[in-house]
Amino acid sequence: MADNRKMWSDLGMNLELHDQLCEVLPQAFGDVFLSQENRPEAMDYYNMVVADIHGIRPAELIEHQKKGGKVFGTFCVYVPDEVIFAADAIATGLCGGSQFWVPGGEKVLPVNTCPLIKASVGARLDRTCPFFRIADMYIGETTCDGKKKAWEILSEDVPVYVMDLPQMKRAKDVQAWAEEITALKDQVEEFTGNKVTAEKLAAAIKLINDKRRALDRLYNCRKSEVLPISGTDALVISQIAFYDDPARFAQMTNKLCDELEQRIRDGVSVVPAGTKRIMLTGTPLAIPNWKLHNIVETSGAVVVCEEMCTGTRYFENLVDETKETVEDQIQAIAERYMKINCACFTPNHGRIDDIFRLAKEYKVDGIIDVNLKFCNLYDTEGYFVERAMKEAGIPVLGIETDYTDSDAQQLRTRISAFVEMLNSK
Amino acid sequence: MADNRKMWSDLGMNLELHDQLCEVLPQAFGDVFLSQENRPEAMDYYNMVVADIHGIRPAELIEHQKKGGKVFGTFCVYVPDEVIFAADAIATGLCGGSQFWVPGGEKVLPVNTCPLIKASVGARLDRTCPFFRIADMYIGETTCDGKKKAWEILSEDVPVYVMDLPQMKRAKDVQAWAEEITALKDQVEEFTGNKVTAEKLAAAIKLINDKRRALDRLYNCRKSEVLPISGTDALVISQIAFYDDPARFAQMTNKLCDELEQRIRDGVSVVPAGTKRIMLTGTPLAIPNWKLHNIVETSGAVVVCEEMCTGTRYFENLVDETKETVEDQIQAIAERYMKINCACFTPNHGRIDDIFRLAKEYKVDGIIDVNLKFCNLYDTEGYFVERAMKEAGIPVLGIETDYTDSDAQQLRTRISAFVEMLNSK
Ligand code: SF4
Ligand code: SF4
Ligand code: SF4
Ligand code: SF4
Repeated sequence: MADNRKMWSDLGMNLELHDQLCEVLPQAFGDVFLSQENRPEAMDYYNMVVADIHGIRPAELIEHQKKGGKVFGTFCVYVPDEVIFAADAIATGLCGGSQFWVPGGEKVLPVNTCPLIKASVGARLDRTCPFFRIADMYIGETTCDGKKKAWEILSEDVPVYVMDLPQMKRAKDVQAWAEEITALKDQVEEFTGNKVTAEKLAAAIKLINDKRRALDRLYNCRKSEVLPISGTDALVISQIAFYDDPARFAQMTNKLCDELEQRIRDGVSVVPAGTKRIMLTGTPLAIPNWKLHNIVETSGAVVVCEEMCTGTRYFENLVDETKETVEDQIQAIAERYMKINCACFTPNHGRIDDIFRLAKEYKVDGIIDVNLKFCNLYDTEGYFVERAMKEAGIPVLGIETDYTDSDAQQLRTRISAFVEMLNSK
Repeated sequence: MADNRKMWSDLGMNLELHDQLCEVLPQAFGDVFLSQENRPEAMDYYNMVVADIHGIRPAELIEHQKKGGKVFGTFCVYVPDEVIFAADAIATGLCGGSQFWVPGGEKVLPVNTCPLIKASVGARLDRTCPFFRIADMYIGETTCDGKKKAWEILSEDVPVYVMDLPQMKRAKDVQAWAEEITALKDQVEEFTGNKVTAEKLAAAIKLINDKRRALDRLYNCRKSEVLPISGTDALVISQIAFYDDPARFAQMTNKLCDELEQRIRDGVSVVPAGTKRIMLTGTPLAIPNWKLHNIVETSGAVVVCEEMCTGTRYFENLVDETKETVEDQIQAIAERYMKINCACFTPNHGRIDDIFRLAKEYKVDGIIDVNLKFCNLYDTEGYFVERAMKEAGIPVLGIETDYTDSDAQQLRTRISAFVEMLNSK
């Protein structure tokens, strides 16, 4: 821990402010995670990762930098990690999920900005997160209004490269995205000094696909009626996927899945039979945002799936591994990423198809449509999502929340009533 | 007026609700406009247009439709009218500027949506605006989150064609916009059955440029120390430009400019010498949103320029008229439109250069940075705008408002204090 303080200080962090964060995080983690019963043993790895979240992985990234490697920070599941790893660089997710960082963001951003953006900007400007300090370059994208403008603010403090994500999904838009990925490759090559060869890109595609396969295997376990893992545990794994070493993450998650699959064979469930199965859909839940899962799972229901970027949108669909030239590989990458259905597209009908499919696959009893306050995209799209669910007779609860705790009691009341309604059906 | 009622009824309008609007609008217009002293005589034309806003022009559009012509509704100064008029169709601006339409929009949109979007959706869904009823097709664009998603809602009620506006301004983005304009041309040709030839497009480019030249002449008059027209009058002219017949509008505006230029020669100003000259910058002021101009000009100052889409962003820069093929003409159109500096781009440094330039050209004493509530783009960009103005020593007041009257008193207090501060300098 003394080593950590030296590292944080070397990173130019605001140690005093950061200490406040270090004081509350373990408590929050203990309350939410360690209090759960019958957790899989292999959760130990993820416990350890979170317990030393600002220590272990940051030290690895710095080690990589000492050897001349670069670290890129990303904020959206549309930014292809493959290209970054292919240049012997490391990509790390930088989305902020704590209220702790919000006031720092509000110093420069409108209060009417989604908390994810405010927290991300605050984490950088207040110098209270090692990941935000370590990243040599941020890769932004033009997904939503708030982020489009946040890049301009961040770029005064750190190099930011922005990818122009098409806003529609016609054939020409997939081509446009392939071009943007090529431009990213050029940028990453220049910044790292390393050439992205077909061989390296093939290895990176495999590396990231392996992570996706591991997550897919984890989520497959959650489809079982014998539910071997809580939604809260699955969520933190999804969150860790954004910044852990991909190879180790896949390995540890596969190890966990061995245990989960054994549990399914043994009939070991974390919840009593008949517990109502909830799917969350909507805006991402960046680490350490565990509020909703915690409320649902302490209200007598269980979360079995997240149709979210911290969830299925992150790992569904693989990049074709059979391509042999960089050009063809980038085309395959573009095609895979353009299958993600985010509300930033107009229209985005595919997302509703996804929700229906997932509801069936995960044997869902009810859906909670989650919106981070001031996310206009998901909020407006919620109108269509909730209408479609109602028309199909799937119970749905729409909620809006932010990173504060002030609405926790009200959310608990509404979610309890929803679960009760499901139980009485 | 009896004719109007029949027309509105034929358009499927909600007459009862619309009557409420008809009751308040003339009063509002009278209060804001007719109470002004020493107005130019040629304002008579615009008075008449506004007085019968839901009568005269709608009747003309319907006449055009009876002859087989199409009407396209637009919502952004990035959508090139040239292409529409070249297909013997008419483009008409559809942005809603009244609180009257907001509750209708809030039935389907998040309350946290900018009033311009809520009013536009409400005007359509509540069937209380003839223009929104008449338009055969709406042309949307991917400028901001709220509009991206509003198209999906509107398209359930009316055909909507969406153009994907690039979110950045690299050379390739100008090319992408040229491609989108070509796709619009194809769509308009198909929908109207009329071919866009180089000859017709040349005529349409000239038609719209003439409108721009007339507005430029009007705004040039506002640069004079002898100020021949109020900002309130200039604003309503800018607003009418969005839906009036372009040739007639240019003609009437040139006629007005004859009078204004004579006034300048005669030393006839609408305000006493030394009246502080204000520029507004920010989000558009769609008709009938006259609140801010009215407050400024009844607080002892005068508005001399709007760096807004209802202002300089609408008419500055002409399309090159020398091109001879449709392809070259579209390229010229794309280049002209990509010179507009809207906060929907990342970054958008050009806008700050514009504001500095305009402040000098219009001899501005102070700037009011206006944001429509929940417009995250202009709100965030305001951080840079206001900082740049302060650094340059130009007095700037940042305000946020919506379409309600509830903040009028508070705005008046703040604006009066700002004007007083300018006067005491
Ligand atoms: S919600 Fe959309 S913008 Fe946000 S991370 Fe996911 S894909 Fe990207
Ligand atoms: S939650 Fe919405 S507003 Fe926030 S970053 Fe994601 S897309 Fe943007
Ligand atoms: S403010 Fe931007 S999005 Fe709105 S009309 Fe103007 S250019 Fe279009
Ligand atoms: S004012 Fe802002 S939020 Fe409203 S339509 Fe224009 S760009 Fe969009």
